[in-house]
Amino acid sequence: MDIAMIGLGRMGANMAERLHRGGHHVIGVDPGEAARTTAAERGFEVSASIAETLAALPVPRVVWLMVPAGVVDQTLASLSPHLSEGDVVIDGGNSYYKDSMRRNEQLQGEDVTYIDCGTSGGVWGLQEGYSLMIGGDQAAVERIGAIFRTLAPAEDRGWAHVGPSGAGHFCKMVHNGIEYGMMQAYAEGFALMQHKTGFNLDLAQVAKAWQHGSVVRSWLLDLSADALARNPQLDGIAPYVEDSGEGRWTVAEAIDLDVPAPVITLSLLERLRSREKNSFSDRLLAAMRNEFGGHAIKTT
Amino acid sequence: MDIAMIGLGRMGANMAERLHRGGHHVIGVDPGEAARTTAAERGFEVSASIAETLAALPVPRVVWLMVPAGVVDQTLASLSPHLSEGDVVIDGGNSYYKDSMRRNEQLQGEDVTYIDCGTSGGVWGLQEGYSLMIGGDQAAVERIGAIFRTLAPAEDRGWAHVGPSGAGHFCKMVHNGIEYGMMQAYAEGFALMQHKTGFNLDLAQVAKAWQHGSVVRSWLLDLSADALARNPQLDGIAPYVEDSGEGRWTVAEAIDLDVPAPVITLSLLERLRSREKNSFSDRLLAAMRNEFGGHAIKTT
Amino acid sequence: MDIAMIGLGRMGANMAERLHRGGHHVIGVDPGEAARTTAAERGFEVSASIAETLAALPVPRVVWLMVPAGVVDQTLASLSPHLSEGDVVIDGGNSYYKDSMRRNEQLQGEDVTYIDCGTSGGVWGLQEGYSLMIGGDQAAVERIGAIFRTLAPAEDRGWAHVGPSGAGHFCKMVHNGIEYGMMQAYAEGFALMQHKTGFNLDLAQVAKAWQHGSVVRSWLLDLSADALARNPQLDGIAPYVEDSGEGRWTVAEAIDLDVPAPVITLSLLERLRSREKNSFSDRLLAAMRNEFGGHAIKTT
Amino acid sequence: MDIAMIGLGRMGANMAERLHRGGHHVIGVDPGEAARTTAAERGFEVSASIAETLAALPVPRVVWLMVPAGVVDQTLASLSPHLSEGDVVIDGGNSYYKDSMRRNEQLQGEDVTYIDCGTSGGVWGLQEGYSLMIGGDQAAVERIGAIFRTLAPAEDRGWAHVGPSGAGHFCKMVHNGIEYGMMQAYAEGFALMQHKTGFNLDLAQVAKAWQHGSVVRSWLLDLSADALARNPQLDGIAPYVEDSGEGRWTVAEAIDLDVPAPVITLSLLERLRSREKNSFSDRLLAAMRNEFGGHAIKTT
Repeated sequence: MDIAMIGLGRMGANMAERLHRGGHHVIGVDPGEAARTTAAERGFEVSASIAETLAALPVPRVVWLMVPAGVVDQTLASLSPHLSEGDVVIDGGNSYYKDSMRRNEQLQGEDVTYIDCGTSGGVWGLQEGYSLMIGGDQAAVERIGAIFRTLAPAEDRGWAHVGPSGAGHFCKMVHNGIEYGMMQAYAEGFALMQHKTGFNLDLAQVAKAWQHGSVVRSWLLDLSADALARNPQLDGIAPYVEDSGEGRWTVAEAIDLDVPAPVITLSLLERLRSREKNSFSDRLLAAMRNEFGGHAIKTT
Repeated sequence: MDIAMIGLGRMGANMAERLHRGGHHVIGVDPGEAARTTAAERGFEVSASIAETLAALPVPRVVWLMVPAGVVDQTLASLSPHLSEGDVVIDGGNSYYKDSMRRNEQLQGEDVTYIDCGTSGGVWGLQEGYSLMIGGDQAAVERIGAIFRTLAPAEDRGWAHVGPSGAGHFCKMVHNGIEYGMMQAYAEGFALMQHKTGFNLDLAQVAKAWQHGSVVRSWLLDLSADALARNPQLDGIAPYVEDSGEGRWTVAEAIDLDVPAPVITLSLLERLRSREKNSFSDRLLAAMRNEFGGHAIKTT
Repeated sequence: MDIAMIGLGRMGANMAERLHRGGHHVIGVDPGEAARTTAAERGFEVSASIAETLAALPVPRVVWLMVPAGVVDQTLASLSPHLSEGDVVIDGGNSYYKDSMRRNEQLQGEDVTYIDCGTSGGVWGLQEGYSLMIGGDQAAVERIGAIFRTLAPAEDRGWAHVGPSGAGHFCKMVHNGIEYGMMQAYAEGFALMQHKTGFNLDLAQVAKAWQHGSVVRSWLLDLSADALARNPQLDGIAPYVEDSGEGRWTVAEAIDLDVPAPVITLSLLERLRSREKNSFSDRLLAAMRNEFGGHAIKTT
Repeated sequence: MDIAMIGLGRMGANMAERLHRGGHHVIGVDPGEAARTTAAERGFEVSASIAETLAALPVPRVVWLMVPAGVVDQTLASLSPHLSEGDVVIDGGNSYYKDSMRRNEQLQGEDVTYIDCGTSGGVWGLQEGYSLMIGGDQAAVERIGAIFRTLAPAEDRGWAHVGPSGAGHFCKMVHNGIEYGMMQAYAEGFALMQHKTGFNLDLAQVAKAWQHGSVVRSWLLDLSADALARNPQLDGIAPYVEDSGEGRWTVAEAIDLDVPAPVITLSLLERLRSREKNSFSDRLLAAMRNEFGGHAIKTT
């Protein structure tokens, strides 16, 4: 198929390449010259211009957005004048599902189909394929099925049309919440082994032993085993953990639906905690202990 | 090799069969007639008598214990008179690592080598092999290496001699703590999707899409996908979750080592919560709200 | 001072009575006949009509809203045509502070001053006075200071003008978050004592002993002691705990500001948990345990 | 009454003084010269010798231990030769309740009565009196009731004989668990207000407003208000929170009794977290994010 890939960052460039390798005609679009230059070496066409790219595509067009959640609306505003009836726009990024539902309604007025596609797989997706959770119009999803079959790990695996508009990004949001919880579980377990004196455990060795046959085997464990093999004490890495939004949305959604999700929630809070400097709550706790019990305060 | 497998429960019988299939000479021992009868159909020798079994094995003997943590000491007491210098006893069950260290010291006095082997893989180990975390004397582990290579998923994968006596069961304990956290993360995520109205999500379909290419792919996800495919609403299953000890030990160890493990800890507490009837704390909360705010109490 | 109290529910009627007792001229307004009838016995004027009430008040008027957070906007819409320049409207309910800030901006356009006043004290406020956290214009707060001094436990205690518009309801929101955490802490502690066999503890006795001299003495403990004295086993009370919004806002705000608030957050989640029936996450956990370990599932 | 106070640390010296002021004949015993010198200025007798002190007391003797939990056994060993039938020994410190039960059994063999008395109130107890939770023999508790009535805030308030041996220290353990949870709840709430920009909240002012009439009023809030009034930003205080054992015991007991106590538990874990340097779990989380998503790692 012919497809425009808007956004040639880490994810977009890889996906464009996987589609190109899969025999699709891909035009990658990015306003950044550096991104275009790097992408150009991957074999697919690149362009700086949305207008020219869309003019070059056969109608009805297929346009894939792979841009940060924060710039989807402005990207759609740039796209909109160049779209025509029957075009399909897919948002493959980490947008909030309610935004996707709103955008779908907007574009319906222009007879453009909007598909929200949660995309998992990170930098490994180029080789291994991406897990895709797709929301939106059934007919459109079928029409561009070849795209999904190429991006997925296999034609018939790792992708699903999970529901109407919004459902794709909803499932991706939950996916990332689960990811937070799993990561935190491994992190705590390995930290416990790292602190255990006497056994002198080799964490990479333990991780490797768990990769085969154990109940906790997983892709995240495979990655942890690799990371620990390369840097057993994780030297030089700051204990500072970012979060990128989906975890927050998952926590808010769970509370909104009255579904207790303590582990996913705590996993997010631990990330906030990792970035905290000079915690005021800890200082107040120390001050209280001093007030009632005369316990010494550690000073800065 | 020649080996006695003491305990022909779900795990022991499977492991004996895997060893038998792998060409080892196995004698399975169990006091229960039913267990022996079932095991006998699997092809390996069975016996009701520890004494006769040990007498039949060439010295130095290899004896594998696969019994509940609560009866290891009494099983060792039964074994002890029949052991002789150079024998190796492996505890493959879920014993507390400090108990294993104590037992190792006891048996050292009798010149018997005691190996603690954390075993993961559950009922699937027969086909797929077991992940083995082994603690204890290096020379003994090497001498019986053929046993581990057969039980593991492959000769060189899924098993490791992780450290001195106790280290094997320590790693298994942590493994299970991580398992609790991962399970809880999935459970919360799927519950959130199950409660979401409007999208009419097919949880088995989502799970299946995640099995390939996603960041959360894992063996536990594979099992969840199977369970949800067979019973999408998990009908007839009570919301009652057992725990078997290792989670408690992990939580206690983490606190003992001053390592915060909030997600593993909460995962255990959620299991306690699942089994609670008529929570007193919730009733007191309701009573307090009534006291200060006149908020209505729901009565039983 | 002259003041209209809009809303004669549990809180509004009590506050109107406290103001009346304190020498203020109060007209209570409520559309419900039952509420008006009950209120009429308390000594202050009552009315069914906002229009008539506002016409009867000397200008500039003082109007206190004590209505559910969900109907503040419609109440303001009813009020608005009858307000004139210089009037002061105080929202004493549990409104979301961002809504209060928005309403303040709206009313500024009409030269009406909007004050947000977080009010704590529950049904005991009539006798003991209310703790008041006030946000909004300094001059207006000073002008109606007599109202606050009467509602508070003492002229100079238990109330404060904490900041600009929104600050009052913000502090009340945080107050309620803290309240959730404290309540949960007591609830867990008493539940632990209730489950302890062997000591046959009398929880009301313990609570009473803690009321004087202990580090955990508090008003919530006083109330708990009363509740336990009347009903030591909390018989007939369902383990079902409502939440009324402020806890959710506190959790969301904390995450929004990157402030980890795990205990307040968990306290909210425990309330969700208390209301859950047939937890899907617990059922999935049980199903997973069965899948990997063959552990028996408890059926419904 | 005549009483020996063994241990003249912060708590012991204050309690001895309160008893002395209350008209009791107190001999304070401490091996440390500095402790004795300071104590001597408080008006009661002091001694360096347990033997001389016990010889000087009329039989049956009353001996109060106020020593760290870790040295109770050795103190009892020193005391034991000088005790005789009918003597009463009270452990007023923070001993583990199971240790107290064991010590009670030991001393029963010597016909000495052992009383465990949980003592709350901290450095304020001298003026305000102590909350006392007493476990042990009913007759002995009655016989030395005058001691408890003097130490408590009032003759008939703030103390209770809560049950048999161990019950006193059990209740004190739970008391401290609750204390952790309450403190954490306040700490989180104030931290949230401290991080809120725009309102420029004066935390001491808010705390003060809450002290009267609010649902969260408590002694811990009074102390927090004082601390914030003196040092509004808690400058110079390190975010480092000690814990002294009772919290750990509470968490372990709750798990042991299958009582979920998530808030008390998390409060303990937050203290561990406050003392952590270069968290390994956070580093592993950062490493994993880099592995799967190519997300940048912050370096040290």
